Order: sequence, then C-alpha cells, then structure tokens
Amino acid sequence: MIRTPYLLFLGDAPDQLAAKVAQGIKDWRPEYAVGQLRLPGCKADMRLPDMTLTEARQAGCKTLVIGVANRGGVISQSWKKVLVQALEEGFDLASGLHNLLRDEEDLAAVARATGRSLHDVRVPDVKYPIANGVRRTGKRMLAVGTDCSIGKMYTALCMEKAMHARGMNATFRATGQTGILITGGGVPLDAVVADFMAGSIEWLTPDNDPNHWDLIEGQGSLFHISYSGVTLALIHGGQPDALILCHEPTRTHMRGLPNHPLPSLEAVRDTALAMARVANPACVVAGVSINTAALSDTEAAEYCAEVETRLGLPTVDPFRHGADRLAEALEAL
Amino acid sequence: MIRTPYLLFLGDAPDQLAAKVAQGIKDWRPEYAVGQLRLPGCKADMRLPDMTLTEARQAGCKTLVIGVANRGGVISQSWKKVLVQALEEGFDLASGLHNLLRDEEDLAAVARATGRSLHDVRVPDVKYPIANGVRRTGKRMLAVGTDCSIGKMYTALCMEKAMHARGMNATFRATGQTGILITGGGVPLDAVVADFMAGSIEWLTPDNDPNHWDLIEGQGSLFHISYSGVTLALIHGGQPDALILCHEPTRTHMRGLPNHPLPSLEAVRDTALAMARVANPACVVAGVSINTAALSDTEAAEYCAEVETRLGLPTVDPFRHGADRLAEALEAL
Repeated sequence: MIRTPYLLFLGDAPDQLAAKVAQGIKDWRPEYAVGQLRLPGCKADMRLPDMTLTEARQAGCKTLVIGVANRGGVISQSWKKVLVQALEEGFDLASGLHNLLRDEEDLAAVARATGRSLHDVRVPDVKYPIANGVRRTGKRMLAVGTDCSIGKMYTALCMEKAMHARGMNATFRATGQTGILITGGGVPLDAVVADFMAGSIEWLTPDNDPNHWDLIEGQGSLFHISYSGVTLALIHGGQPDALILCHEPTRTHMRGLPNHPLPSLEAVRDTALAMARVANPACVVAGVSINTAALSDTEAAEYCAEVETRLGLPTVDPFRHGADRLAEALEAL
Repeated sequence: MIRTPYLLFLGDAPDQLAAKVAQGIKDWRPEYAVGQLRLPGCKADMRLPDMTLTEARQAGCKTLVIGVANRGGVISQSWKKVLVQALEEGFDLASGLHNLLRDEEDLAAVARATGRSLHDVRVPDVKYPIANGVRRTGKRMLAVGTDCSIGKMYTALCMEKAMHARGMNATFRATGQTGILITGGGVPLDAVVADFMAGSIEWLTPDNDPNHWDLIEGQGSLFHISYSGVTLALIHGGQPDALILCHEPTRTHMRGLPNHPLPSLEAVRDTALAMARVANPACVVAGVSINTAALSDTEAAEYCAEVETRLGLPTVDPFRHGADRLAEALEAL
C-alpha cells in the first residue's frame, strides 16, 4: 500500500488532460489530495494549494504522486531534481509511468540511501497465487463493458460513493494503474503474468463480511480481441455476485480496432453472465452504466430510458446522474 | 529457435513418466531425437542409442535438451557436471524447468565464455506486440477443451501428422513448454504478460500461404476459472477458421478444482464458437477429439460414435484411431 496523504506532482503538464491521474485522486479521494506541486510552464491546475516539498511535509504528506503522463517515456531532468529532493525530504514516490522509477539509477540510489519507497504501480510487486475458485464470503460487483476505456473505473468509484452515502459497506478494488494511485493499492492486471491473472483478483477480493461489497474495476471487454483474456480472468477470479454493464453510445468501433464493431449490450449481458456463472452460479446482471459525456442532457436521459426499457435494468450515467439507483439495485439483491 | 537435432538428457529420471518431454520429442519429432544420455540410476529409456557427449556431437547433435522433470525445483549437482561439460563441448542447452538455466551462475558463466545459448522455454524471450486483430492470410485451427490437460497438444500434433500424410500444408504451433521443446519454437503463453497474450499468438501464426494451416496448441479451458483468460486470448489472437473440441470422458471435475464440474461439449462448442466469431466470423467447429486412454477399445468406439451422433461432427481419438477424419474435415472447409 502507498502511504497517504499525497502531494500531487503535476510537473510541466501541457494541459489539464495530461494530469488525469491527479484529477482522479482529487475527484475520488479528496482527503488524500493535500496539495499540488507544479513546475514552470505547467498548464494543469487541480485547484489545490500550491506547496513546496517542505510545506507539504509540514501538512502531513507522505508520498509524492506523479499525477501527470509524461511524453516520450523519459523522466526528464527537470523532474529528477524535484524527485530526488522529495526522497531526501522523506517522501515516498509513486508513479504509474511505463518507464519505472526503480530503473532510474539516481532515484534508486537516493531511495536506498534514505530508506524511502519507490512505488511503480505499472508492475506487480506481489507473487500472486493461481486461482483456486473456492467461494469467498462477502459480495462482489464487477463492471463489464462493451469496449475498453468506456467508464468502468468511474462506474465503480461512483457506486462506492453512492453506497457509502446509503450507509452500505463497500470498497472500490483497483485493477489498473490510475485506480491504484487513486486508492493506494490494487492489482495492475494488465502487467500480471497470464497464469496468475485470475489468482491476482482472488487475492484482491478476499473473504469479507457477509454484507460487504467489493466493487471491482473492470478491464478490457470480452469482445475486445486484444484484451479479452484479461476481462475473462476478472470475471472468473472475481466470482462476482452482480455485473454492471458499461457502454458508450457514440463509439463506432472497438478502441484501436477500426474493423471491429461494438457488441450490443445484450450480447455483453448474455456472454458475461454465462461466463460469470461458471465461477458463481448465483450471479445476476444488476444494472447498466452509460457514459453519456458526448450527449446533451436530453439525449442522455432519452438514451438511458431507452436502454432501461429494452433491458429491463436500472440504467444511469453514474457520473452525470449519480449511481444511487445502481447502489439500490445491489442493496436489493 | 532451438538448434536441432537433439541429444535427450534423461538425468536420473525415477520412471518413464518423469521423462515425458523426451518421450514427446521422440514421438513427434523422431528426426530430432538422435540419442539419449542417462545418469546412473535412470529408470527411463527412450529406446534411443545411449551416447556420450562426444559421440552425440559426432552424430550431429546441436542441443542438449533436458527431457526430464526434476523434483523439488533444483538443478542437482549430478546434472550440473554434465550440463557444464555439454556447453564446453559445443552444445546449446534447452530446458522447460521452472528453475531457469540462466539463473544458475555456473551455467551462465560457462555459456558466456563458450558463446553457447541457454534456452529456458518456460519464459518468453520475445517482446510480443499488442494484438491488432487484422485478418491474416492462411488458415488456422485451434484445439479447445472442456478442461486443462485433456489432450489438446496431442490432438494438434496428430492432426499435423495426418495432414502431412494427406499432402496438406500444415504446421503445429506450440503454446506450451513441452510443445516448444518438441518443435524447437513457440510461445510459452502461460508466462506471457496479460496485455500481450493475444498479440503473442498473432506473432506465432503470421500471414501464410492461402492453403497453409497453423495447428495451434490449445491451453486451459474457457470453463477453467484459473486459466480461462489464457484460453480466450488464444481464441482471439489465433482468429481460428476451425475449432476442434477436446474432451476426456471419465474426468469428474475440472483439473485442480474439485467443486467445479466439467462443462458439456455442447457448452464448449457454443461458447468457444461465439467468442471465435468475434475475431473471425467465418469460424466453424470442425470435429471432436476424445482422449479415450481410460477406456477399452469397445468403450472408446462406442463413446466416439455417441458423440458423433449427438454433435453431428467427426469424432475420433486421434492418438488411438488416427486423426485422418479431422484432417479430412479441415480439407473440406
């Protein structure tokens, strides 16, 4: 686990979008987001107090999180100075970058000398077991999508918020780099070795209180040929009690695959449910989450109503409308 | 690729079964199996000429293949002496053991000094791409099973033999350690990082002549919760034109999962075919391969006839009856 709270490092982010990791932390774990550190030229702003390293330490920050995607896969020298100083001032570092902190010799040396931790959440640091399929106590929800990058993480995070507001016992379980940085822990599933994928999800969602819900972040899609194996490992390792279907209605083809059309929500419902019942015969599809970012208010409401009628399942954009109806659907199970 | 032909190292194998890698090479690539090297106490015998290292070099052997599973995960000192000497006499070494040759400091040092190669087929040595789903020329068959360890590799190897006998253009494509050692190349899919699984199978089965068949070794099962993700990556990366269903009729539960019953052949047919058509809409199920090792001749014939009637597909035990009817089914496509 990554020590919290965080100082969010925005570096020289060229725009707000480049700092989406920092944005995710601020949106979903505001209690972790104590301040931001920006270099000259930074165009992103989380509307958090700008802090020096010393100020952030005094404010209680334990970890400097790299909240920005860099370009070209190199940790620039302008970043290095701050990162080295942060280690020397007692911060751990956390990063989801492809190029690893631990592979930077200067950072690795300072971390060793100061006894500080470098968290590269892009790669696993746990030896996961092979899945054993034994039924676990507690309940689990998994977000499954018609495609990749369609809002599965936001769906699970919105549901966690709505469930907490209802007084329900629920924990978001991150399976990707951004989710891990937001919450401080999880499994970087796309970097796990094939044989241990399902086992890593069993590890992530162990026995729990009977009324506790793990809200498992989905990855990929059963219908995305590049990543479908990852999705099936989530379905079988997660042994979900409930699936939430996720969809983005304006997408014309599978992400990165111009010749592959999206499957229907019905196809995802039927295929994912049949596969989920191999691991948990009691699994049901509990609701639908629509990413309506590209639609007007009226269009979004109409589209959700149409899907709700067609599938007979509560259908909302949890980011736009709140996830209360999805939380209610889980509560009713 | 591993250089052929081979000297098969049987070590101090306690019985014939412990040398099943050597047996597979001898059965399926007899032209690679020039001789065997046994240590005192070895209880396995491939009925090949016993050779010293020098004799094997004179007979043209290029690689010493460790054809035996060791116990306890340690490469014993009694093996080491032979392995070091083999490197010094000009052999490469190849192994599918969990403990890697390259991690043995003495072997690594001698290999460096002599310029010889250490092939640890348990782990990938290729940087595979992410799958792009683009349709490839040539044809592909994938063996899919009701369970793990049910005869998928033998099915594909038997089909290769039968297809060659019919003058067809076909290549077995190994996706597991034993298959890689048998044929000298392939993808150790269970050790590939999640994001690259499907891409590794695209890499393994590239564009080919229109009448060429890749016969892809299957792994796991869509219904085996520990490994199902690996299976789906094979289905989507392989984009097969034909599936062969594999089954072992006396098995009472999924391998290693006592509480999980086997799916029906019909369930595997329907699920695998629907998933395969995401990558290749023209895919068909072409036949059924039954592992009848536990049945009498009469029982085997009756069982295959019953399945053939039920599914309307050519059904054989390819190891017992030959795979000619499966080859014929592919030829007819």
